[in-house]
Amino acid sequence: MNDHAEHLIAKGRHLNLVTRDGWEYAKRPNATAVVAVIAVTPDGALLLVEQPRIPVGGNVIELPAGLVGDEDAGEAITAAAARELEEETGWTPTTCTVVATGPTSPGLTSEMITLVRAEGLRRTGAGGGVAGEKITVHAVPLADVPAWLARKAAAGILIDHKIYAGLWWLSRSGSPP
Amino acid sequence: MNDHAEHLIAKGRHLNLVTRDGWEYAKRPNATAVVAVIAVTPDGALLLVEQPRIPVGGNVIELPAGLVGDEDAGEAITAAAARELEEETGWTPTTCTVVATGPTSPGLTSEMITLVRAEGLRRTGAGGGVAGEKITVHAVPLADVPAWLARKAAAGILIDHKIYAGLWWLSRSGSPP
Repeated sequence: MNDHAEHLIAKGRHLNLVTRDGWEYAKRPNATAVVAVIAVTPDGALLLVEQPRIPVGGNVIELPAGLVGDEDAGEAITAAAARELEEETGWTPTTCTVVATGPTSPGLTSEMITLVRAEGLRRTGAGGGVAGEKITVHAVPLADVPAWLARKAAAGILIDHKIYAGLWWLSRSGSPP
Repeated sequence: MNDHAEHLIAKGRHLNLVTRDGWEYAKRPNATAVVAVIAVTPDGALLLVEQPRIPVGGNVIELPAGLVGDEDAGEAITAAAARELEEETGWTPTTCTVVATGPTSPGLTSEMITLVRAEGLRRTGAGGGVAGEKITVHAVPLADVPAWLARKAAAGILIDHKIYAGLWWLSRSGSPP
């Protein structure tokens, strides 16, 4: 059909398969956005999380990230970023600033992810995520991140490309690498 | 079910909705991988493509990219990168080198994308993609890319985060920004 309307092909609990003008894509029904957080500790370490990801069949290292509005539809993006950072890493930011919003895979999903820079971090908890999440936190000194990621990739751990995007944004703000 | 097997929830023509151990995700049935190409022309311009993307409801600026193995299941990733670059931009590379492979959205899809650096470019065609693709090619001088992207984003054009990842990889290879 080419009526420019979105049609449901299949409804899952967390993900729908839909079509519009003949193009099929995946759509989250229960969240308004996704945030990923670029956060550097006061002693200069980038916070990364590692967790098993069923869709790709292995452990993935990513920026701390999560859904916006899955529990509170009115939640602001920066508030969600602060919450996710605290839940996953145990660090709480003083300020969160939106860096960029864009699609993760615009041919396959309507999902958009907002990169948020978190600053003024203080340690407030253990991290590790909420119930059911199996998250390992890595705090990697910024200068070591490229070599550290290369070693992890060589060991078969998957690296989310948005980490490299985060490093570029850090380099633009005067925090190399 | 928690039998560790993948179960089909719904089968589309180009995309399936599947579940494994209770986790729902989207999976392409007809392609083995996706490539995105980091390519700088001999006069120092980064090649970007802009096209309407139905899933996100607007124009998106991306690295030139495409599916591997959708027409030839034995196609190598670097060969696919060279083919996609030529089809979309009209530039043909002498060499293609794999930079990194990783998931695009590992909570939502099994899709993995490989960033490939293409070098030794020569102009061989008009670009614009194959039948049905509505691709505009942008060749942006590297030093201007950050400001150019910011202007495009401010005008409401969506920017794929993998462009920033590509800029980071270029900076690592001695080609800032």
